[in-house]
Order: sequence, then C-alpha cells, then structure tokens
Amino acid sequence: MNTFFPEVDAVKYEGRESTNPLAFKYYDADRVVGGKTMAEHLRFAVCYWHTYKSQGGDPFGSGTFERPWNAGSPMEVAEKTLEANFEFITKLGVPFWCFHDRDIAPEGASFGEAVANLETIVAKAKKLQQATGVKLLWGTANMFSHPRYMHGAASNPDPHVVACCAMQVRRALDATLELGGANYVFWGGREGYETLLNTDMKRERAQMAAFFHMAVDYAKKIGFTGQFLIEPKPHEPTKHQYDFDSATVLSFLREFDLLDHFKLNVEANHATLAGHSFAHELAVAAEAGKLGSVDANVGDPLLGWDTDQFPTDINDTTRAMLVILENGGLGSGGLNFDAKVRRPSIDTVDLFHAHIGGMDTFARALLAAQAIIDDGRIAEFKAQRYAGWDSGLGKSILDGNETLESLEAKAMELGEPKRVSGRQEMLENILINAI
Amino acid sequence: MNTFFPEVDAVKYEGRESTNPLAFKYYDADRVVGGKTMAEHLRFAVCYWHTYKSQGGDPFGSGTFERPWNAGSPMEVAEKTLEANFEFITKLGVPFWCFHDRDIAPEGASFGEAVANLETIVAKAKKLQQATGVKLLWGTANMFSHPRYMHGAASNPDPHVVACCAMQVRRALDATLELGGANYVFWGGREGYETLLNTDMKRERAQMAAFFHMAVDYAKKIGFTGQFLIEPKPHEPTKHQYDFDSATVLSFLREFDLLDHFKLNVEANHATLAGHSFAHELAVAAEAGKLGSVDANVGDPLLGWDTDQFPTDINDTTRAMLVILENGGLGSGGLNFDAKVRRPSIDTVDLFHAHIGGMDTFARALLAAQAIIDDGRIAEFKAQRYAGWDSGLGKSILDGNETLESLEAKAMELGEPKRVSGRQEMLENILINAI
Amino acid sequence: MNTFFPEVDAVKYEGRESTNPLAFKYYDADRVVGGKTMAEHLRFAVCYWHTYKSQGGDPFGSGTFERPWNAGSPMEVAEKTLEANFEFITKLGVPFWCFHDRDIAPEGASFGEAVANLETIVAKAKKLQQATGVKLLWGTANMFSHPRYMHGAASNPDPHVVACCAMQVRRALDATLELGGANYVFWGGREGYETLLNTDMKRERAQMAAFFHMAVDYAKKIGFTGQFLIEPKPHEPTKHQYDFDSATVLSFLREFDLLDHFKLNVEANHATLAGHSFAHELAVAAEAGKLGSVDANVGDPLLGWDTDQFPTDINDTTRAMLVILENGGLGSGGLNFDAKVRRPSIDTVDLFHAHIGGMDTFARALLAAQAIIDDGRIAEFKAQRYAGWDSGLGKSILDGNETLESLEAKAMELGEPKRVSGRQEMLENILINAI
Amino acid sequence: MNTFFPEVDAVKYEGRESTNPLAFKYYDADRVVGGKTMAEHLRFAVCYWHTYKSQGGDPFGSGTFERPWNAGSPMEVAEKTLEANFEFITKLGVPFWCFHDRDIAPEGASFGEAVANLETIVAKAKKLQQATGVKLLWGTANMFSHPRYMHGAASNPDPHVVACCAMQVRRALDATLELGGANYVFWGGREGYETLLNTDMKRERAQMAAFFHMAVDYAKKIGFTGQFLIEPKPHEPTKHQYDFDSATVLSFLREFDLLDHFKLNVEANHATLAGHSFAHELAVAAEAGKLGSVDANVGDPLLGWDTDQFPTDINDTTRAMLVILENGGLGSGGLNFDAKVRRPSIDTVDLFHAHIGGMDTFARALLAAQAIIDDGRIAEFKAQRYAGWDSGLGKSILDGNETLESLEAKAMELGEPKRVSGRQEMLENILINAI
Repeated sequence: MNTFFPEVDAVKYEGRESTNPLAFKYYDADRVVGGKTMAEHLRFAVCYWHTYKSQGGDPFGSGTFERPWNAGSPMEVAEKTLEANFEFITKLGVPFWCFHDRDIAPEGASFGEAVANLETIVAKAKKLQQATGVKLLWGTANMFSHPRYMHGAASNPDPHVVACCAMQVRRALDATLELGGANYVFWGGREGYETLLNTDMKRERAQMAAFFHMAVDYAKKIGFTGQFLIEPKPHEPTKHQYDFDSATVLSFLREFDLLDHFKLNVEANHATLAGHSFAHELAVAAEAGKLGSVDANVGDPLLGWDTDQFPTDINDTTRAMLVILENGGLGSGGLNFDAKVRRPSIDTVDLFHAHIGGMDTFARALLAAQAIIDDGRIAEFKAQRYAGWDSGLGKSILDGNETLESLEAKAMELGEPKRVSGRQEMLENILINAI
Repeated sequence: MNTFFPEVDAVKYEGRESTNPLAFKYYDADRVVGGKTMAEHLRFAVCYWHTYKSQGGDPFGSGTFERPWNAGSPMEVAEKTLEANFEFITKLGVPFWCFHDRDIAPEGASFGEAVANLETIVAKAKKLQQATGVKLLWGTANMFSHPRYMHGAASNPDPHVVACCAMQVRRALDATLELGGANYVFWGGREGYETLLNTDMKRERAQMAAFFHMAVDYAKKIGFTGQFLIEPKPHEPTKHQYDFDSATVLSFLREFDLLDHFKLNVEANHATLAGHSFAHELAVAAEAGKLGSVDANVGDPLLGWDTDQFPTDINDTTRAMLVILENGGLGSGGLNFDAKVRRPSIDTVDLFHAHIGGMDTFARALLAAQAIIDDGRIAEFKAQRYAGWDSGLGKSILDGNETLESLEAKAMELGEPKRVSGRQEMLENILINAI
Repeated sequence: MNTFFPEVDAVKYEGRESTNPLAFKYYDADRVVGGKTMAEHLRFAVCYWHTYKSQGGDPFGSGTFERPWNAGSPMEVAEKTLEANFEFITKLGVPFWCFHDRDIAPEGASFGEAVANLETIVAKAKKLQQATGVKLLWGTANMFSHPRYMHGAASNPDPHVVACCAMQVRRALDATLELGGANYVFWGGREGYETLLNTDMKRERAQMAAFFHMAVDYAKKIGFTGQFLIEPKPHEPTKHQYDFDSATVLSFLREFDLLDHFKLNVEANHATLAGHSFAHELAVAAEAGKLGSVDANVGDPLLGWDTDQFPTDINDTTRAMLVILENGGLGSGGLNFDAKVRRPSIDTVDLFHAHIGGMDTFARALLAAQAIIDDGRIAEFKAQRYAGWDSGLGKSILDGNETLESLEAKAMELGEPKRVSGRQEMLENILINAI
Repeated sequence: MNTFFPEVDAVKYEGRESTNPLAFKYYDADRVVGGKTMAEHLRFAVCYWHTYKSQGGDPFGSGTFERPWNAGSPMEVAEKTLEANFEFITKLGVPFWCFHDRDIAPEGASFGEAVANLETIVAKAKKLQQATGVKLLWGTANMFSHPRYMHGAASNPDPHVVACCAMQVRRALDATLELGGANYVFWGGREGYETLLNTDMKRERAQMAAFFHMAVDYAKKIGFTGQFLIEPKPHEPTKHQYDFDSATVLSFLREFDLLDHFKLNVEANHATLAGHSFAHELAVAAEAGKLGSVDANVGDPLLGWDTDQFPTDINDTTRAMLVILENGGLGSGGLNFDAKVRRPSIDTVDLFHAHIGGMDTFARALLAAQAIIDDGRIAEFKAQRYAGWDSGLGKSILDGNETLESLEAKAMELGEPKRVSGRQEMLENILINAI
C-alpha cells in the first residue's frame, strides 16, 4: 500500500508540556474520566468529504489542494482515496469514519454504474476496516450536489427525482449495513425553498415524511438496526430549510409519526447559524431523548455561512460536553469532525494539525466538564433552585391538581415572592476555572 | 370627554393622488376586494402598550414623549388613557384594540388592589366599547415587566411566582371575556433562559405546559370561547426563548397535547429575528391550520433587536398578504399594529402618520395580492410544477404504495430526470408588477 | 453569427399594463425624467462573470447551467461567449458591459499565453463594440480565483505573487484603454486575512498602497483617463477584508495619499453585509465626492453571504436613487448588474427575466425619486431642520468662532432647548406614496 | 463611612486551586510577566454607570436591583454612591475608575444647578481618591440619555443643543482635570441617524468636527494633557452611527485634521456588533498608532445588541492581549470593565463575582499571550512569511522603485509562484495550548 502521509507516523499523547505540534496535549485515548476512557466518551470520527474530497475551492476561487490520491481514472482515485482514509485515521488514532455514497464512489455514466461502483468500493472498505479495526460511525447519501437535486431531493416537485433519491438511499443503506455502520444520517441540503412563489411547502414536507417512512421500512426489511439520524440546518444552500433546528425537526417527526425512528445529529456550526448556542441545540435534542450524534465543528460567529472549522473554543466545547455527559453520552453516536482546513492550508500535514487541535479541545472539555460534575456546585445550585417543584405547590401544579383560581388564592395569601439572584456570573466563573 | 388629539378630526380615504399626509391613499374600508371589504380582510387593531403607554425611552435614554393623558393619580392616568385610546381609534377608523392587563390598569400596592383596579377599568372600557363600536381583538397579561418575573413567568424556578401568573391570567381572561375579546394571547417574554448553568429547560417547559392546560380549563369553565394564541419570538429579552418560532411552538403544542387549543400570533419582526421571512412564519402556521392572528410590524434587518416599526415595505407585505389570502383570511384574528413611533417622533400626530402608513401599506398589499391571485399565473405555475404528485407515481408515493426498491426500479427505467427552470425571477417580476 | 438567445428578439417597453414577461413595464430608455433620459440616468451594464461564465454551482452543488456558448477549445468558448455577450446586451437594450480579464480570455498554459489570449479577445471585442454600439463601463483583473492568490493579491506575503498581479493589472488596463472603458475597478477579493496569527496587516495594507500607486502611474503613462474605482466589501471570501466599507476605503485612500485618484464602486449587497443600508454607503461615498459607480444588486438580509440577487426591492432602490440624483448622477459610472440568476433558473431566458426585473425596478425608483424631488416636501423639511446652521450661532460654530465657554454661556442664557419631532413616519409615508 | 459591601473584605489572589468564589485564581497584581507587573499591564478600571447606577431594567422590564446607596435626595444618593464606588474598588483591588458627568452628579433643575452639583461631587471624589489611592482612568459627558439629545449631541440639527453639549464637555473636562484623569473619552451615542429622509449626514459630521476642535482648544487652554479618546460603535441607539468602527473613526480624524489629538477607546462588544473581531479592531487602532484604551467586555455573538457582559472567553481575550502586548501596552489607557451583571444577578456580591471573572480572564490571557511571545514560534513564522519584503524585490516595491512593467517582466521570468501553506490550524493550536 502507498503511503499518502509520509510526514507522520502515528500521533501520540505527549501531555500539556509537549511542544511537538504533531502530538496530543490532552487527548489520551485510554485515560479514564468519570468511569470511561476518553476514547469511549468521545468516539471521534473523520469525515470523508472535507478530509479527502475537498479541493479547497470556495465561491470565489478554485481548488488549492493537490492531493496525492487524486490521480488516475475515477475508480482508481476512489480506491486510492479509500487507502488514504484508512492510513490517515490509523495514524491519527481515531476509531470511526463517516461518508456519503458519492464521496467514496464515482457516480459513473449511468445509475447502474453508480450502484456497481459503490458496491466495489464498499467491498474494499470492508477489507480495510477489518485490517485496521476502524469502524463506520455512519453512512449517508449525497442528494444535494448533483444538478438533478437543484429543486430538492425527497421534497422535489418531480416524483421522478424522488425515485432517484430512493435508489441512492437504498444503496447507501445497503452499504452502511455491509460496513456495520452504527447510524445512518439524513442531511436535507436541498430540502427547503428559495421562494414561496414557486413552492408548496406543505406538499414538500409531506413528501419528505413519506420518504422517511419508506427508509424506515427498508431498514427493517434488510435488518439494519443502526440509528436513523436527521441533521438540522437553518440556511444554506437554500434560504429556508425544512430542518431549521432541533425543535423544527422534532416538530416534523411528531407531526408525521416518525419520532420513534429518528434521533438528531446536531452540528455546532448549524446551531449558531440558526441563532442558537451549540449547547442549546444539544440540550433540546437531549431533553427529548433524541440526542443521537454530533458533528463536531465550529462556525465563525461573525460570518453568515457554514465555515466548518475545527473546534478550538474551549468554553463552548466545555458547555457542550456538559450536556453530553448529563445525557449519559452519545450512545451509538459519536463526534464526527465535519470540519475542513482553511483553503490556504494546502498540505496533508495540515489535516493532522487540524484534527489534533479538535481532538485536544474536546479532550480538554471532557476533563473540564467532568471536573464541574465532580465539583458538584453547579448541580447543587440547580437542584436548590428548582426544589419547589419536587414537592408541595410545585409538584401539585405539575400533577395537574391546581387551577388558576387555586393558585390565585395562594398568591393572595403569600403576597409578593422573594427575589433571589440567578448567580450567572459566579456559575460562569466555576465553569471557566474548571478549564 | 377631553380631546387628546385635537390635531385630527377623522382620517379619510382620499386616494392615491392626495397629498394630505393625514388621509389614506389606499385604505378604503368599504372597498370590496376579492369578495370582502378591506375592513373585513384586514381587521386592524391598535395596541395599547406602544401607542399610549410608551414614554419613548430606549436602553440609552429616558422618555421623550409627553402625553396629555399622563396626569394625575395612577387611576386617573388609567382612565384618561382609556379615553385617549377610544378617541384615537375612532378617529383612525380602526375596528379593534389590544391590551395587556398592566397597560390599562395600575398594579397598585397589593394583589387585591391590582385585581380591583383592573375591574374598574374594564367596566369603563366596556362602556366606551359600546359607545364607539370599537371591539377587542385580544387581551393578554404582562408577565415580563415586573421584577418578580425576572427568572420567568410560568417557567419560573419558584412555584410561588407561577401562582402570581395564575392570578394575572385568570383576571386577564375574565377581562377579555367581559369585553368580548375575540382572542387571548400568550407572549412568553421571560419564558426562556440566559444560561444552562442555572436552568433546567426540560422542567421549565413542562411547567409552561401545565400552566397552559390550567388556562384552557379555566377558559372552558368561564365560557370564554375566543381563540388562544401563542406568539413566537426567538431572542429578547432572554437569550434563548422557548417560543423561538412557529415550528418550535408547534412542536411544543404537539409534545404537550395542546395543539387543539392554540393557534399562533405571528409577528413580522419576530420572524426576521429568528432568521425567517415574515411570509415563511405565516406559511408554517397556516399549513398547520394554526394561523390565528398577526402582529403587523416590521424590524430593521440590519439591527438585531425588536425595532417594532410600522410596516412600509410593500414587497414583504404583499408576500404576507398572499399567504393570508390563501389561508382564507385570519378568522377571529386580525392585524395588530405592535409597532411604535421612533423615539424622536414625539407628537401625538406622529401616531396618526405611523398608523396611516401601516394601514396604507397593508391595503396596497391586499390589492396587489388579490391582483396576483386574479391574474392566476403564479398559481398555475405551481399547479403545473407539482402535477406529478396529483396522480401516478407521485400519488402512489404519498399513498404509501411505494418502497425504496420499487422507486429504484422506476429510476433505473426512466434514467436521468429532465431538468426544468424554477423561474424565480419571472415569478418575482409578476409579484412586483402587481404592486 | 450564431444566435444564442433565439427566444428573444428585442426587449421593448410596453408599459405598466403589459403582461408580456419579456417586456419592460417601467424602463423606457428615451423617456425624459428630470431633464435627462432614463438611459442617461441609469447607464446600465451587464456583467460578464455572472451572466455568461457562471455554471450555477454553489458550495453544496455543481453547475446546473448548460450554456450553448460553452463548446470547443478554451479560445473557441471565449469567442462564442463574447458573441453571446453582444447579442444579449443588444437584445436587452443596455448600453454597457463589464468584465474581468479572466472572464473573457482563458489563462492558458503560461503567462505569455494569457497575455496573448487576452489581446486576441480584446481585438474581437473592439470590433463587436463598433458593430453594436455597446460600450465598456469598466474592466478589471480577477486576482482572487486562481490558487496563487489564496494568500492575497497585492497584499500577498510573497512579492513574487504581487509581480503576477502587476502583470494582470497592466494588461487589464491596456485592454480597458483599448476598449474605451470609462472606468477601471479594483475589487480586493483576497485582500484581507483569516487570522492575525499569520498576518501582518500593517505591512499588507502598505503593499496595497504601493501597488495602487504603480497602477496610477501606469495609467498616466499609457494615457488612460478613465476613473479608478475601489469596491468595498466586508467579508467573503476572507473573514476580515481590508476594503470593509466606504468609510474604510476612504480612510485608506486618505492614509496613503490616493484620494485624488480613486472613487468608489458601491455594491448594494456588500453594503448590507457590512451592516449598512445601500443608501448609507452611497451617501458616505457621495458626501466625500467619491461616488463613482454602482454594483446594482441586492442581498438577502436573512442570509450572511453575497447572494447577488437582481434588485426588486422598490423601497430600497428608491432610497438609493434619491442619493444618486442628489449626487447629480454617477458621472462616468453606471449601474452594473453584478447579479446572478438563482441556481435552478437554468434557461437563458431566465437571464432576460432577471435583467428586466432589475431594470424596471431601477426605472421605477428613478421615477419615484424624481417625484419626491419635484414634490419638494422632504427637501424643505430638511432645509428647515438645519436652518440654524446657515447663519447665527450655527454658522459661528462651523466658522470656528465659538468656544466651549462661549457656547456654555449661550446655553445658560437660552435654557433648555425646545424639542421638535423628527417626523420620520410622515417622511417615510411621502416616500412610499411616491412609488 | 457606611459599608455598602459587607459581604466582602478584600478580594485576594489564592491561585488556581482555590474554590473560594470571592478570590482571584489568576490575577496576582504584583506578579511580574514580561518585565511588568500584572497591575501595570492591565490597568483595570471599574465603570460607574453599570456598576452603581444601573437599576437592572431592560427594554421589557423595570429595574430589579435595590442598591443600598439609593436612598435620600438626589445629592445624598450621589454622595453615597461615590462612597460605594471607592469601597468597591478598594475591596476589589482595582487602580482606576471611570464616569460620565451625569452618573456622579444629578442634573438638577437648571443648568446652573447641574454645574454646581458636579463641582460638589468632584470635590468629594478628589478627597476619596486621595484617601484610597484610586485614580481616574477617564471622565466623559453623557450626551445621549437626556431627551434633548434625541436628535444628536454635537451632530444635532439645532445649534442650541450643541451649546448644551459644550457646557457639559467643558465641565466634564474641568472635572477630569481636577481629578487627574489620564484620558477623556467621547462616545457618540446619539451621533448618527435613523433615516436620510430627515438627515444631512455631511453637515452633521462637519458639526462634530467643529465641536472636537473646540474641545481640543479648551483642553489646551486649561492645561489638560490627558489623552482624548473616541469610542467606536456601529449601531445602537441609532441605526447608523458616525463612529461605526476603528477605520471609520480614523477616516473622520484624517478628514477633519484631528488625527494628532485623538486615539481610540476600543470596546469588544462594539467590535463584534460591527462585524469585526475584538482583536481586529484593536489591531486597526494599534497599526495607526492610535490604540488608546479598551472597554473590556464581551457581547453575545448570537444577539444583536450591546449585551455588555464581563469577559470570560479566554480564546478571544488572549488574542486581544497579544495585540496589546505587541503594541507595547496601552500607555495612559487601561482596561475599563464597561460591563454589567445580568438583570437577575441582583445582589451586590454579584458585582464582585463578575469583576473577579473578568479580571481573572484578562490575567490568564496575559499569561497566555506572554507565553506565546516567549515561545516565539508564531512571531518567527510571521517573520519568515514576509521575509520577501525586507529586501530584494519586496523592498524595491515598497520603496517605489518598481512599475507594473518591471514587475511583469519579473513575473514572466520567474513563472508561477510556489504555493505554501498558511498553517492556520497549527498556529491556532499553539495559541490554545498556551492557555
């Protein structure tokens, strides 16, 4: 096998004091934190699209990356890229990968060729998984890049296009099953609209629901028991996307009787584009019992598009890890680096720098979040704050035993409530001091 | 009765060519458009809080308005303000008003006094309604201004505060019933949070649901048959508000079995603060059968807070009126001007200018939207675009008769779909030419 | 010559009542408004990059447009595209075009080839200009798309790259001179930075200034007397761009003694991305005597990237035309449609719909702005409002004859100033009623 | 003297491991970092307005804070508040304070009374300064809260209002001189506009310039040698503010020949509201030699108004400290906490928590920034990156010895430049690992 990353042997943990840029300062896979190893907590995954398939283009310029795996026929490129993937992941020491169907295998000249190409590559991937021990966190189908999806995928005004989606999802599910994928993700990049002047939103959303039901049925039929995930995103590429945020997706799942079959794949950058903090979107999903997996990246709060940067903000990441730990972890999900190096970071070594920074940031955030939990002051503060709902009047309200009149009588009797500080600043100090 | 607005007699329709700033150029109450009069379509309401109670303060400066009705004891001020309201509305020729409990009556020194003050004012308002023919579009309770609500109203960590809310909502419902209000609105100004470090979001949302159920029960008990409405807003005053947007509220109503009892009161400025167009938020509500009423204002898209300006954007308003007409109107709801004059617009005549501009903009938008409907080209384009779902393959998918495999077979048979233009630019030209 | 646009003969003015989507409803080139024809006022230009070179790709999907001129070798494509340009412009009835060097001629395998290709195409363009009467509004060099510019053009850390810029600008200036271009534009797409960790902003800005001085010298040498223009933009592609907005560019020009040689090319979408209204950016430039030309498009205020849509917002466009008319027009500049059809608007006829909508919107805005000027009430209001500065105390302050002490004495004498309304709502009503 | 803060004796440095929320974990005033003590580096100041004068109101609710110093007549309140200020600052161990004229002394019933009140309080403040050793970082005049300034202060359409400004600035300068203030700040809260329909921006900016010249003259006359500072802010309270950002202010100073007399007071929250990072705004000012002082707070990037929170983001603060250290510090300026506790943080102890968190964050950022400088890798990377400009071709360009033609010849000779990575991810890892 070729080596595509000769600059790195294997990334090791060297501790905080190391000045080796190609070593971990915080991520120590086997270190036990709160009863589980870091590797078990964090379940990192490398994404195929940004890491290997990106050329470094942006809306104002063409590609800048010249990757050694991009040589030969489309299928030769596909095979080399797959080898690069397993080499990179193995050297990085990450347990999982994620892909779209069209990332790993070329579309070809016909639908039949696309199916065959995918099968060929999946067979090779299966061998490489066995050889390396790397596992598949999730698979998905790219139903947004091809021009046929310009008006939508499952929400397309043309049922013929929806049939193409069915073909892709069927085959991507087969591939995910074959590779033992723990989850299957839907990101509705083109499920949305630009203008109501040409769009019947109600009909399009019903189409999506019908499509998801078919996917659920097919998974059952083939024995795929991985978790289905929907990934919310508010804008981009379409102006109004149907999966705007966690709450919107939950509403859709409830409306169309799909709640039992799906969880959410929450992405940090998508959260902030929707006007929410990352922790908020995680918490909305978690409180509904629907936090499935995470796309671990970060956006630039000053920019209005998906910058998909590697996470380096220790404050926000600690807040996110607190929600994840309180959720009992991510179950079958993980932390997928849906993140890309900047366009001028053209060397393959930059891919290592980027992932190392992201992994260290999450490892450090895990340590801080666990320290906050172990410290107990924040949890205790919250318990005290809501103690009135555990019994007495509060419990009676929640149990449905009170009325507006009975409560009015109580208010009249008790008079003006005592006001107590929310202590936000003190609590934030506890958080930052844990870092 | 005093006159508080001596500068205006009654605002008349004078037509497009009029240069009288205190006349309507488009709003002609009795003009029939698409089978109903403008007055029946638009159901305008004047809001009490901005129109009479605002002092013109902002976060960086104190009040600038010196209103003639603000003299005397709190109850004297309340009575004069009420008279000003009916004079203003009558001169403006608007059919409805809207209020919060604390707008119309002072809180007083005790809860008992607050209740008594409200009853006194409601009695007077009832007489003024009878005398003028003005009606109540909706009432509501202000549970966000008083310091006791700094941590939330129904979502407060302290059940004692929730008891105070119950008292307010009970009495506000009584007042709305007494005044024949067509709707009752909940805006959760403080229902949200600043930081998860001191907040149990799941518990707080459950509290809100319990509270809404009590309100539903109380309304039933007293025979209030008006429509309950929730008003979405994403941020401000709290960072994360539980009623972020239409989809979030629908999700909440579905989760807590409240969907049968509530519709939405959609505000333009809140829509854009959430990253949605006004028309989108209206359409989300309408497609769920839940478009109840509208807060007719507009925000400044360059500013990140609720500027609550009077609507003067004819493009956006036409798009909104299209959704409203396609919804068959607003039912018991209306167009409430939840809008305020700018801080330096200190004269009472500025209140007339502002409302006239807003009413003319909606009247013109109604004419444009009806012209688009009568023209039929946009509707025809949409019908053609989705025709594939009315029968054949599309219908079969929606009816649940297809599978991923059956659709794959179809795709293989049909090959690559034909691509057709979405014609967005042509459709937008039809819209702007209708204005 | 081939015809690339067989679907259209020539777009005619048919007036407001026309339902022909391929006719002007407002733009009537020879109609005299305020002493000049519409054509003289508006000086429309078609841009080469979006109109002919765009493939319809976006960050999430590949091209959707299949243009008939894209066939053959790179130079054959270049020649056909040029023919398409003159056919399109002629049929649309627009007087001007604009281009980047790399839009009209392929880069080729070497710098020498790039220079030769450009000369070949310019020679052909000159003939087509003569044949059609179409003129060049401005030329420019694309120094942002090629990977060599990934770290900047004139602000590049490597002087070697700056030498490449010099070559491009020299040849683009030659081309602009040869084609009689009225202006030459600099848009610093890559003049900015992502992180201060690798950037010396002070040095980079000094490099840019040195570069501009060389361009000024070269223009003088070759006898190019057109106007140099800089186009502000705040973000995208880089996070921090050196030409953020009009004020930032003016500051730069003042700092580096370039103010005499440059004016501004103000783009609507760039204005709103910077947090300003389009009219504000125009006014900042105009008040400095530096309003040179306009990129006539519009962004989506809900989206954080350059959507480059065709202008259809009549309110904003009227406000812009007011500033332009008050500036006495745009001089050698014009209104360049730096705008693109949406990705699913794949037919060449969509290019006509889009331009017709933009031209009609500006024509209508011109009529409205002139009507407001003719009406005179807004100008009179402003004159009255500032009358105190034309003489007496105000004039004395502006003339430098007062001190803090002399003014304090005046304040003590006069006491509290009288407060007067700013009448914003009334003035806005005058504006919207003029539309 | 009363004690207003009995809950705290004096805040001490206890080190990272301390769990005492009322102790510093990082700020150790006398610790030497890079040759200066932390106290010398950071020059913290407490602001009067948020800390003592705020009632905790927001646009949707009234005040929540009940401060013990707010009792008695206006002058009694003023005196007690002053005592509270010196007690708080002393207990916190901060060297400086900052105020507006109207914060420290009530306006009174007449201008004469306002002047007298201010003098009385200044005399008392002088004594308290002497008694405590606390110094004045800067004074300023509040010319935005009073209704008379609703149309602007120095930019007001009415010269009579400008005379009032002159009175305030004169007396605020006198007060600042009397108290030995190191700087004097102008923040133009109302210097901007809502709509061009009633605004002559050019005239208003000229008025401001005339006013600043008078202030410069007056300072010279009275012998005030402190630094004049202008504080940029983009929006809020007005839509378009004349001091949008650092570049805009520098442009203004250059245009009106004021550059020699002013530096900038850069605020973090104002930076992000303008679409810039805090470090960017600092760098723009620093590179012009105009970084005067800092308002040390932070905004919420998801909210569109000035949230004025205490800084707790260690990443951003480290980037800011890097710019400040590279600037050689802040000279006569300092780090003023223009920040406020959240509305529900109602206890006086919350003021300590908040300031402690802010001080620790800056202390930690100072340590990290100095570590990065000492490490040297980032500086070395930058030096290498721009080495081409120190001699040879780059130097020749900067020296004005090259032309477009000479550079073209160089490009032709050298061919395509070699592309090198910008290593952003590696550099960011160095930064975060220094924290």
